[in-house]
Amino acid sequence: MANSPSGDAVVDRLVRVLETFDSRHARLSVGAMARRAGLPRSSAYRLVGQLVEHGLLSQHDDGRVSLGLRLWELTARASSAADLSRIAQPYLEDVNQVIRQHTQLGILHEDEVLVLERLSRPEAAINQAHVGERLPLHRTSLGMVLLAHAADSVREDLLERRAAEIAAHHRDIRRELAHIRQHGCATFDGFIDPETTGAAAPILDSRGRAIAAVGIVVPRGSEVLPSALMALRTAARGISRALAASSLDPDALDARG
Amino acid sequence: MANSPSGDAVVDRLVRVLETFDSRHARLSVGAMARRAGLPRSSAYRLVGQLVEHGLLSQHDDGRVSLGLRLWELTARASSAADLSRIAQPYLEDVNQVIRQHTQLGILHEDEVLVLERLSRPEAAINQAHVGERLPLHRTSLGMVLLAHAADSVREDLLERRAAEIAAHHRDIRRELAHIRQHGCATFDGFIDPETTGAAAPILDSRGRAIAAVGIVVPRGSEVLPSALMALRTAARGISRALAASSLDPDALDARG
Repeated sequence: MANSPSGDAVVDRLVRVLETFDSRHARLSVGAMARRAGLPRSSAYRLVGQLVEHGLLSQHDDGRVSLGLRLWELTARASSAADLSRIAQPYLEDVNQVIRQHTQLGILHEDEVLVLERLSRPEAAINQAHVGERLPLHRTSLGMVLLAHAADSVREDLLERRAAEIAAHHRDIRRELAHIRQHGCATFDGFIDPETTGAAAPILDSRGRAIAAVGIVVPRGSEVLPSALMALRTAARGISRALAASSLDPDALDARG
Repeated sequence: MANSPSGDAVVDRLVRVLETFDSRHARLSVGAMARRAGLPRSSAYRLVGQLVEHGLLSQHDDGRVSLGLRLWELTARASSAADLSRIAQPYLEDVNQVIRQHTQLGILHEDEVLVLERLSRPEAAINQAHVGERLPLHRTSLGMVLLAHAADSVREDLLERRAAEIAAHHRDIRRELAHIRQHGCATFDGFIDPETTGAAAPILDSRGRAIAAVGIVVPRGSEVLPSALMALRTAARGISRALAASSLDPDALDARG
Protein backbone atom coordinates (compact mmCIF):
# COMPACT_ATOMS: atom_id res chain seq x y z
CA MET A 1 0.00 0.00 0.00
CA ALA A 2 2.93 2.32 0.68
CA ASN A 3 3.64 2.28 -3.04
CA SER A 4 0.03 2.47 -4.15
CA PRO A 5 -0.19 4.47 -7.39
CA SER A 6 -3.55 5.87 -6.37
CA GLY A 7 -2.41 8.41 -3.79
CA ASP A 8 -2.37 11.20 -6.33
CA ALA A 9 -5.80 10.17 -7.62
CA VAL A 10 -7.16 10.31 -4.07
CA VAL A 11 -5.66 13.75 -3.39
CA ASP A 12 -7.01 14.94 -6.74
CA ARG A 13 -10.51 13.67 -5.89
CA LEU A 14 -10.33 15.17 -2.42
CA VAL A 15 -9.55 18.59 -3.89
CA ARG A 16 -12.36 18.21 -6.44
CA VAL A 17 -14.76 17.36 -3.60
CA LEU A 18 -13.67 20.35 -1.48
CA GLU A 19 -13.97 22.64 -4.54
CA THR A 20 -17.67 21.81 -4.90
CA PHE A 21 -18.49 23.79 -1.74
CA ASP A 22 -18.78 27.57 -1.71
CA SER A 23 -20.94 30.24 -0.07
CA ARG A 24 -23.87 29.36 -2.35
CA HIS A 25 -23.33 25.59 -2.04
CA ALA A 26 -22.44 25.15 1.62
CA ARG A 27 -24.47 21.96 1.99
CA LEU A 28 -24.92 19.42 -0.82
CA SER A 29 -26.39 15.98 -1.31
CA VAL A 30 -23.72 13.40 -2.11
CA GLY A 31 -25.25 13.02 -5.59
CA ALA A 32 -25.11 16.76 -6.30
CA MET A 33 -21.59 16.89 -4.92
CA ALA A 34 -20.52 13.98 -7.17
CA ARG A 35 -21.97 15.75 -10.25
CA ARG A 36 -20.23 19.03 -9.39
CA ALA A 37 -16.94 17.19 -8.74
CA GLY A 38 -17.28 15.04 -11.88
CA LEU A 39 -16.94 11.85 -9.82
CA PRO A 40 -18.84 8.56 -10.24
CA ARG A 41 -21.49 8.29 -7.50
CA SER A 42 -19.94 5.12 -6.06
CA SER A 43 -16.51 6.76 -5.73
CA ALA A 44 -18.13 9.85 -4.24
CA TYR A 45 -20.00 7.83 -1.61
CA ARG A 46 -16.84 5.94 -0.64
CA LEU A 47 -14.75 9.11 -0.41
CA VAL A 48 -17.45 10.94 1.54
CA GLY A 49 -17.52 8.06 4.03
CA GLN A 50 -13.77 8.39 4.55
CA LEU A 51 -13.86 12.18 4.82
CA VAL A 52 -16.79 12.17 7.26
CA GLU A 53 -14.96 9.61 9.40
CA HIS A 54 -11.98 11.97 9.63
CA GLY A 55 -14.16 15.05 10.21
CA LEU A 56 -13.12 16.78 6.98
CA LEU A 57 -16.78 16.66 5.91
CA SER A 58 -19.87 16.65 8.14
CA GLN A 59 -22.94 14.63 7.24
CA HIS A 60 -26.27 16.00 8.44
CA ASP A 61 -29.56 14.32 9.40
CA ASP A 62 -30.90 14.82 5.87
CA GLY A 63 -27.89 13.00 4.41
CA ARG A 64 -26.37 16.14 2.91
CA VAL A 65 -22.75 17.00 3.55
CA SER A 66 -20.83 20.20 4.28
CA LEU A 67 -17.22 21.05 5.07
CA GLY A 68 -16.33 19.65 8.49
CA LEU A 69 -15.30 21.59 11.53
CA ARG A 70 -12.11 19.51 11.71
CA LEU A 71 -11.04 20.85 8.31
CA TRP A 72 -11.50 24.42 9.54
CA GLU A 73 -9.64 23.57 12.76
CA LEU A 74 -6.62 22.09 10.96
CA THR A 75 -6.46 24.99 8.52
CA ALA A 76 -6.95 27.72 11.13
CA ARG A 77 -4.16 26.50 13.41
CA ALA A 78 -1.35 27.41 11.02
CA SER A 79 -2.66 29.51 8.17
CA SER A 80 -0.73 32.60 7.17
CA ALA A 81 -3.85 33.85 5.36
CA ALA A 82 -5.83 33.62 8.61
CA ASP A 83 -2.99 35.31 10.52
CA LEU A 84 -2.82 38.21 8.05
CA SER A 85 -6.57 38.55 8.17
CA ARG A 86 -6.56 38.60 11.97
CA ILE A 87 -3.83 41.24 12.17
CA ALA A 88 -5.64 43.41 9.62
CA GLN A 89 -9.06 42.97 11.20
CA PRO A 90 -9.07 45.93 13.68
CA TYR A 91 -7.91 48.30 10.92
CA LEU A 92 -10.53 47.01 8.49
CA GLU A 93 -13.11 47.48 11.22
CA ASP A 94 -11.93 51.10 11.64
CA VAL A 95 -12.31 51.78 7.90
CA ASN A 96 -15.68 50.06 7.91
CA GLN A 97 -16.91 52.13 10.87
CA VAL A 98 -15.55 55.44 9.59
CA ILE A 99 -16.49 55.12 5.90
CA ARG A 100 -19.53 52.89 6.43
CA GLN A 101 -19.05 51.03 3.16
CA HIS A 102 -17.99 47.49 2.27
CA THR A 103 -14.32 46.99 3.15
CA GLN A 104 -12.13 44.26 1.69
CA LEU A 105 -8.70 42.74 2.16
CA GLY A 106 -7.16 40.87 -0.77
CA ILE A 107 -3.92 39.29 -1.93
CA LEU A 108 -2.50 38.40 -5.33
CA HIS A 109 -2.96 34.67 -5.91
CA GLU A 110 -2.69 32.80 -9.21
CA ASP A 111 -3.29 35.91 -11.35
CA GLU A 112 -6.38 36.90 -9.36
CA VAL A 113 -7.33 38.74 -6.18
CA LEU A 114 -8.08 36.26 -3.41
CA VAL A 115 -10.47 37.91 -0.93
CA LEU A 116 -9.18 37.28 2.61
CA GLU A 117 -11.75 39.43 4.40
CA ARG A 118 -14.83 41.42 3.51
CA LEU A 119 -16.75 43.54 6.03
CA SER A 120 -20.06 45.27 5.65
CA ARG A 121 -22.40 46.27 8.49
CA PRO A 122 -22.82 43.58 11.18
CA GLU A 123 -26.43 42.83 10.27
CA ALA A 124 -25.52 42.28 6.60
CA ALA A 125 -22.22 40.49 7.14
CA ILE A 126 -23.21 37.02 5.97
CA ASN A 127 -24.58 38.20 2.64
CA GLN A 128 -21.56 40.25 1.74
CA ALA A 129 -18.97 37.81 3.03
CA HIS A 130 -17.67 36.10 -0.08
CA VAL A 131 -14.41 35.47 1.70
CA GLY A 132 -12.23 32.88 -0.02
CA GLU A 133 -13.52 33.84 -3.45
CA ARG A 134 -11.64 35.58 -6.25
CA LEU A 135 -11.90 38.83 -8.17
CA PRO A 136 -10.36 39.67 -11.53
CA LEU A 137 -6.97 41.33 -11.13
CA HIS A 138 -7.00 44.05 -13.75
CA ARG A 139 -10.67 44.92 -13.28
CA THR A 140 -10.67 45.75 -9.56
CA SER A 141 -8.98 48.53 -7.62
CA LEU A 142 -7.59 45.91 -5.23
CA GLY A 143 -6.05 44.03 -8.12
CA MET A 144 -4.61 47.12 -9.79
CA VAL A 145 -2.95 48.14 -6.52
CA LEU A 146 -1.51 44.65 -6.03
CA LEU A 147 -0.23 44.63 -9.61
CA ALA A 148 1.26 48.13 -9.32
CA HIS A 149 3.22 47.17 -6.23
CA ALA A 150 4.19 43.61 -7.23
CA ALA A 151 7.84 42.73 -7.86
CA ASP A 152 8.82 43.98 -11.34
CA SER A 153 9.36 40.44 -12.65
CA VAL A 154 5.98 39.23 -11.36
CA ARG A 155 4.18 42.24 -12.88
CA GLU A 156 5.88 42.03 -16.27
CA ASP A 157 5.34 38.28 -16.49
CA LEU A 158 1.65 38.69 -15.70
CA LEU A 159 1.17 41.64 -18.10
CA GLU A 160 2.66 39.58 -20.93
CA ARG A 161 0.70 36.40 -20.24
CA ARG A 162 -2.58 38.29 -19.89
CA ALA A 163 -1.89 40.92 -22.57
CA ALA A 164 -4.93 40.17 -24.75
CA GLU A 165 -7.59 40.38 -22.03
CA ILE A 166 -5.91 43.38 -20.40
CA ALA A 167 -5.92 45.24 -23.75
CA ALA A 168 -9.71 44.85 -23.83
CA HIS A 169 -10.02 47.01 -20.69
CA HIS A 170 -6.91 49.19 -20.51
CA ARG A 171 -5.32 51.37 -23.18
CA ASP A 172 -2.01 51.76 -21.34
CA ILE A 173 -1.99 49.70 -18.15
CA ARG A 174 1.72 50.33 -17.44
CA ARG A 175 1.01 54.06 -17.27
CA GLU A 176 -1.97 53.47 -14.99
CA LEU A 177 0.13 51.27 -12.71
CA ALA A 178 2.89 53.89 -12.56
CA HIS A 179 0.24 56.46 -11.60
CA ILE A 180 -0.95 54.16 -8.78
CA ARG A 181 2.61 53.70 -7.51
CA GLN A 182 3.06 57.48 -7.52
CA HIS A 183 -0.17 58.21 -5.59
CA GLY A 184 -0.16 55.25 -3.21
CA CYS A 185 -3.74 54.31 -4.01
CA ALA A 186 -6.08 53.48 -6.87
CA THR A 187 -9.65 54.37 -7.69
CA PHE A 188 -11.72 53.09 -10.61
CA ASP A 189 -15.31 53.78 -11.62
CA GLY A 190 -17.69 51.02 -12.65
CA PHE A 191 -15.16 48.27 -13.21
CA ILE A 192 -17.47 45.38 -12.35
CA ASP A 193 -20.68 47.21 -11.43
CA PRO A 194 -21.36 50.46 -13.37
CA GLU A 195 -23.04 51.95 -10.27
CA THR A 196 -20.02 51.70 -7.99
CA THR A 197 -16.53 53.07 -7.54
CA GLY A 198 -13.75 50.99 -6.04
CA ALA A 199 -10.74 52.36 -4.19
CA ALA A 200 -7.76 50.55 -2.71
CA ALA A 201 -4.38 51.10 -1.04
CA PRO A 202 -1.39 48.75 -0.78
CA ILE A 203 -0.13 47.07 2.39
CA LEU A 204 3.61 47.17 1.76
CA ASP A 205 6.56 45.22 3.11
CA SER A 206 9.91 46.82 3.98
CA ARG A 207 11.00 46.61 0.32
CA GLY A 208 7.91 48.49 -0.85
CA ARG A 209 6.20 45.46 -2.34
CA ALA A 210 2.52 44.76 -1.76
CA ILE A 211 1.77 41.99 0.73
CA ALA A 212 -1.94 42.68 0.38
CA ALA A 213 -4.35 45.50 -0.41
CA VAL A 214 -7.24 47.05 1.45
CA GLY A 215 -10.17 48.43 -0.52
CA ILE A 216 -13.68 49.80 -0.37
CA VAL A 217 -16.63 49.90 -2.74
CA VAL A 218 -18.76 53.08 -2.67
CA PRO A 219 -21.69 54.32 -4.77
CA ARG A 220 -20.35 55.89 -7.98
CA GLY A 221 -19.65 59.60 -7.66
CA SER A 222 -19.79 59.44 -3.86
CA GLU A 223 -18.50 62.61 -2.21
CA VAL A 224 -16.88 60.53 0.49
CA LEU A 225 -14.19 59.30 -1.91
CA PRO A 226 -11.35 61.82 -1.29
CA SER A 227 -11.51 61.39 2.47
CA ALA A 228 -12.08 57.65 2.08
CA LEU A 229 -8.80 57.42 0.17
CA MET A 230 -6.99 59.06 3.08
CA ALA A 231 -8.63 56.62 5.53
CA LEU A 232 -7.66 53.66 3.32
CA ARG A 233 -4.04 54.76 3.05
CA THR A 234 -3.92 55.30 6.81
CA ALA A 235 -5.37 51.85 7.53
CA ALA A 236 -3.00 50.23 5.00
CA ARG A 237 0.00 51.84 6.71
CA GLY A 238 -1.26 50.67 10.10
CA ILE A 239 -1.58 47.10 8.82
CA SER A 240 1.91 47.27 7.24
CA ARG A 241 3.35 48.33 10.60
CA ALA A 242 1.42 45.68 12.54
CA LEU A 243 2.65 43.01 10.09
CA ALA A 244 6.25 44.17 10.43
CA ALA A 245 5.92 43.89 14.23
CA SER A 246 4.38 40.40 13.99
CA SER A 247 6.01 37.04 13.40
CA LEU A 248 4.11 36.60 10.12
CA ASP A 249 6.36 35.82 7.17
CA PRO A 250 4.83 37.60 4.15
CA ASP A 251 6.54 35.12 1.82
CA ALA A 252 4.46 32.35 3.44
CA LEU A 253 1.48 33.81 1.59
CA ASP A 254 3.19 32.71 -1.63
CA ALA A 255 1.15 35.37 -3.29
CA ARG A 256 3.89 37.38 -4.86
CA GLY A 257 5.14 35.06 -7.58
CA MET B 1 -7.98 2.43 -9.37
CA ALA B 2 -11.59 3.29 -8.68
CA ASN B 3 -11.67 0.35 -6.27
CA SER B 4 -8.23 0.97 -4.80
CA PRO B 5 -8.25 -0.06 -1.15
CA SER B 6 -5.80 2.66 -0.26
CA GLY B 7 -8.13 5.66 -0.42
CA ASP B 8 -8.75 5.53 3.29
CA ALA B 9 -5.02 5.20 4.00
CA VAL B 10 -4.33 8.28 1.86
CA VAL B 11 -7.03 10.33 3.62
CA ASP B 12 -5.69 9.14 6.98
CA ARG B 13 -2.14 10.20 6.03
CA LEU B 14 -3.35 13.51 4.69
CA VAL B 15 -5.06 14.28 8.02
CA ARG B 16 -1.93 13.22 9.93
CA VAL B 17 0.15 15.55 7.75
CA LEU B 18 -2.22 18.50 8.25
CA GLU B 19 -2.25 17.81 12.02
CA THR B 20 1.52 18.35 12.24
CA PHE B 21 1.10 22.09 11.61
CA ASP B 22 0.04 24.53 14.31
CA SER B 23 0.88 28.05 15.42
CA ARG B 24 4.25 26.90 16.81
CA HIS B 25 4.99 24.64 13.84
CA ALA B 26 3.76 26.67 10.89
CA ARG B 27 6.69 25.69 8.66
CA LEU B 28 8.41 22.32 8.86
CA SER B 29 11.05 20.37 6.97
CA VAL B 30 9.60 17.30 5.27
CA GLY B 31 11.69 15.12 7.61
CA ALA B 32 10.36 16.85 10.75
CA MET B 33 6.84 16.69 9.36
CA ALA B 34 7.22 12.94 8.66
CA ARG B 35 8.41 12.34 12.25
CA ARG B 36 5.53 14.34 13.74
CA ALA B 37 3.04 12.54 11.48
CA GLY B 38 4.57 9.12 12.14
CA LEU B 39 5.05 8.50 8.42
CA PRO B 40 8.00 6.86 6.64
CA ARG B 41 10.13 9.56 4.97
CA SER B 42 9.56 8.12 1.50
CA SER B 43 5.78 8.18 1.93
CA ALA B 44 5.99 11.68 3.35
CA TYR B 45 8.01 12.97 0.39
CA ARG B 46 5.60 11.41 -2.09
CA LEU B 47 2.52 12.76 -0.33
CA VAL B 48 4.08 16.23 0.07
CA GLY B 49 4.75 16.28 -3.68
CA GLN B 50 1.09 15.55 -4.37
CA LEU B 51 -0.18 18.07 -1.83
CA VAL B 52 2.16 20.82 -3.06
CA GLU B 53 1.03 20.16 -6.64
CA HIS B 54 -2.60 20.71 -5.57
CA GLY B 55 -1.73 23.75 -3.45
CA LEU B 56 -2.80 22.16 -0.15
CA LEU B 57 0.80 22.60 1.03
CA SER B 58 3.32 25.26 -0.02
CA GLN B 59 7.00 24.45 -0.38
CA HIS B 60 9.42 27.30 0.28
CA ASP B 61 12.89 28.09 -1.06
CA ASP B 62 14.51 26.34 1.90
CA GLY B 63 12.57 23.14 1.15
CA ARG B 64 10.32 23.48 4.19
CA VAL B 65 6.56 23.20 3.82
CA SER B 66 3.57 24.99 5.29
CA LEU B 67 -0.18 24.85 4.81
CA GLY B 68 -1.06 26.11 1.33
CA LEU B 69 -3.15 29.12 0.47
CA ARG B 70 -5.40 26.87 -1.62
CA LEU B 71 -6.34 24.89 1.51
CA TRP B 72 -7.34 28.11 3.28
CA GLU B 73 -9.25 29.24 0.19
CA LEU B 74 -11.26 26.01 -0.10
CA THR B 75 -12.04 25.98 3.61
CA ALA B 76 -12.94 29.68 3.85
CA ARG B 77 -15.45 29.60 0.99
CA ALA B 78 -17.99 27.48 2.82
CA SER B 79 -17.07 27.18 6.47
CA SER B 80 -19.77 27.68 9.07
CA ALA B 81 -17.03 28.22 11.68
CA ALA B 82 -15.62 31.09 9.60
CA ASP B 83 -19.12 32.51 9.07
CA LEU B 84 -19.90 32.44 12.79
CA SER B 85 -16.56 34.03 13.54
CA ARG B 86 -17.17 36.78 10.99
CA ILE B 87 -20.64 37.59 12.32
CA ALA B 88 -19.32 37.71 15.88
CA GLN B 89 -16.23 39.76 15.00
CA PRO B 90 -17.62 43.32 15.44
CA TYR B 91 -19.08 42.40 18.84
CA LEU B 92 -15.84 40.77 19.97
CA GLU B 93 -14.03 43.90 18.83
CA ASP B 94 -16.41 46.00 20.96
CA VAL B 95 -15.71 43.87 24.05
CA ASN B 96 -12.01 43.98 23.31
CA GLN B 97 -12.04 47.78 22.96
CA VAL B 98 -14.23 48.41 26.01
CA ILE B 99 -12.69 45.89 28.43
CA ARG B 100 -9.18 45.97 26.94
CA GLN B 101 -8.49 42.33 27.76
CA HIS B 102 -8.12 39.19 25.67
CA THR B 103 -11.48 38.25 24.17
CA GLN B 104 -12.37 34.80 22.87
CA LEU B 105 -15.08 33.01 20.96
CA GLY B 106 -15.43 29.25 21.38
CA ILE B 107 -17.72 26.35 20.55
CA LEU B 108 -18.20 22.88 22.01
CA HIS B 109 -16.40 20.36 19.80
CA GLU B 110 -15.51 16.76 20.67
CA ASP B 111 -15.71 17.33 24.46
CA GLU B 112 -13.48 20.42 24.26
CA VAL B 113 -13.71 24.14 23.57
CA LEU B 114 -12.58 24.88 20.02
CA VAL B 115 -11.33 28.48 19.87
CA LEU B 116 -12.85 30.18 16.82
CA GLU B 117 -11.48 33.64 17.52
CA ARG B 118 -9.17 35.31 20.01
CA LEU B 119 -8.52 39.04 20.08
CA SER B 120 -5.99 40.98 22.06
CA ARG B 121 -4.59 44.43 21.21
CA PRO B 122 -3.71 44.88 17.50
CA GLU B 123 0.05 45.01 18.08
CA ALA B 124 -0.03 41.74 20.07
CA ALA B 125 -2.58 39.90 17.95
CA ILE B 126 -0.31 37.29 16.41
CA ASN B 127 1.08 36.08 19.72
CA GLN B 128 -2.28 35.62 21.36
CA ALA B 129 -4.05 34.17 18.37
CA HIS B 130 -4.18 30.47 19.08
CA VAL B 131 -7.25 30.24 16.93
CA GLY B 132 -8.11 26.68 15.93
CA GLU B 133 -6.73 25.27 19.15
CA ARG B 134 -8.63 23.65 22.00
CA LEU B 135 -9.20 24.35 25.68
CA PRO B 136 -10.42 21.92 28.34
CA LEU B 137 -14.18 22.05 28.73
CA HIS B 138 -14.69 21.84 32.47
CA ARG B 139 -11.66 23.97 33.34
CA THR B 140 -12.52 27.14 31.42
CA SER B 141 -15.34 29.64 31.82
CA LEU B 142 -16.08 29.28 28.10
CA GLY B 143 -16.42 25.53 28.48
CA MET B 144 -18.56 25.70 31.62
CA VAL B 145 -20.95 28.10 29.88
CA LEU B 146 -21.16 25.84 26.81
CA LEU B 147 -21.80 22.83 29.02
CA ALA B 148 -24.42 24.65 31.12
CA HIS B 149 -26.37 25.61 28.03
CA ALA B 150 -25.91 22.40 26.00
CA ALA B 151 -28.89 20.16 25.24
CA ASP B 152 -29.68 18.08 28.36
CA SER B 153 -28.78 14.81 26.63
CA VAL B 154 -25.43 16.17 25.40
CA ARG B 155 -24.55 17.51 28.87
CA GLU B 156 -25.54 14.37 30.76
CA ASP B 157 -23.72 12.13 28.30
CA LEU B 158 -20.58 14.21 28.64
CA LEU B 159 -20.76 14.46 32.44
CA GLU B 160 -21.02 10.67 32.66
CA ARG B 161 -18.22 9.90 30.20
CA ARG B 162 -15.86 12.41 31.83
CA ALA B 163 -17.01 11.85 35.43
CA ALA B 164 -13.59 10.89 36.84
CA GLU B 165 -11.63 13.88 35.55
CA ILE B 166 -14.47 16.29 36.35
CA ALA B 167 -14.58 15.00 39.96
CA ALA B 168 -10.93 16.02 40.32
CA HIS B 169 -11.86 19.70 39.77
CA HIS B 170 -15.52 20.07 40.74
CA ARG B 171 -17.35 18.95 43.89
CA ASP B 172 -20.82 19.36 42.38
CA ILE B 173 -20.61 20.38 38.74
CA ARG B 174 -24.38 20.02 38.13
CA ARG B 175 -25.02 22.64 40.79
CA GLU B 176 -22.40 24.95 39.29
CA LEU B 177 -23.95 24.51 35.84
CA ALA B 178 -27.44 25.27 37.19
CA HIS B 179 -26.01 28.43 38.79
CA ILE B 180 -24.53 29.46 35.41
CA ARG B 181 -27.86 28.88 33.65
CA GLN B 182 -29.58 31.00 36.28
CA HIS B 183 -27.13 33.93 36.01
CA GLY B 184 -26.48 33.83 32.25
CA CYS B 185 -22.72 33.94 32.70
CA ALA B 186 -19.83 32.18 34.40
CA THR B 187 -16.70 33.36 36.14
CA PHE B 188 -13.90 31.20 37.54
CA ASP B 189 -10.64 32.13 39.24
CA GLY B 190 -7.34 30.53 38.34
CA PHE B 191 -8.67 27.59 36.35
CA ILE B 192 -5.67 27.24 34.06
CA ASP B 193 -3.46 30.10 35.22
CA PRO B 194 -3.64 30.93 38.97
CA GLU B 195 -3.04 34.62 38.19
CA THR B 196 -6.11 35.07 36.01
CA THR B 197 -9.88 35.03 36.15
CA GLY B 198 -12.00 33.91 33.21
CA ALA B 199 -15.53 35.02 32.49
CA ALA B 200 -17.90 33.96 29.73
CA ALA B 201 -21.47 34.32 28.48
CA PRO B 202 -23.46 32.07 26.15
CA ILE B 203 -24.55 32.88 22.61
CA LEU B 204 -27.96 31.19 22.51
CA ASP B 205 -30.24 29.97 19.75
CA SER B 206 -34.02 30.42 19.80
CA ARG B 207 -34.40 27.29 21.97
CA GLY B 208 -32.01 28.66 24.58
CA ARG B 209 -29.14 26.33 23.69
CA ALA B 210 -25.58 27.58 23.36
CA ILE B 211 -24.32 27.94 19.81
CA ALA B 212 -21.05 29.38 21.10
CA ALA B 213 -19.69 31.37 24.03
CA VAL B 214 -17.81 34.64 24.30
CA GLY B 215 -15.28 35.08 27.08
CA ILE B 216 -12.50 37.20 28.50
CA VAL B 217 -9.44 36.58 30.61
CA VAL B 218 -8.57 39.30 33.18
CA PRO B 219 -5.96 39.55 35.94
CA ARG B 220 -7.25 37.75 39.03
CA GLY B 221 -9.21 39.99 41.37
CA SER B 222 -9.61 42.68 38.71
CA GLU B 223 -12.14 45.33 39.66
CA VAL B 224 -13.35 45.44 36.08
CA LEU B 225 -15.07 42.06 36.42
CA PRO B 226 -18.66 43.05 37.37
CA SER B 227 -18.94 45.57 34.53
CA ALA B 228 -17.06 43.18 32.20
CA LEU B 229 -19.72 40.55 32.82
CA MET B 230 -22.41 43.03 31.74
CA ALA B 231 -20.44 43.84 28.60
CA LEU B 232 -19.98 40.14 27.82
CA ARG B 233 -23.67 39.37 28.25
CA THR B 234 -24.54 42.35 26.05
CA ALA B 235 -22.13 41.26 23.32
CA ALA B 236 -23.38 37.66 23.52
CA ARG B 237 -26.97 38.84 23.06
CA GLY B 238 -25.93 40.98 20.08
CA ILE B 239 -24.21 38.00 18.46
CA SER B 240 -27.26 35.78 19.12
CA ARG B 241 -29.47 38.32 17.38
CA ALA B 242 -27.07 38.77 14.45
CA LEU B 243 -26.92 34.97 14.02
CA ALA B 244 -30.71 34.68 14.07
CA ALA B 245 -30.89 37.33 11.33
CA SER B 246 -28.22 35.58 9.23
CA SER B 247 -28.50 32.55 6.99
CA LEU B 248 -26.10 30.58 9.19
CA ASP B 249 -27.48 27.22 10.29
CA PRO B 250 -26.19 26.65 13.86
CA ASP B 251 -26.56 22.90 13.40
CA ALA B 252 -23.96 23.10 10.63
CA LEU B 253 -21.40 23.67 13.38
CA ASP B 254 -22.14 20.10 14.52
CA ALA B 255 -20.89 21.23 17.88
CA ARG B 256 -23.88 20.38 19.96
CA GLY B 257 -23.91 16.60 19.84
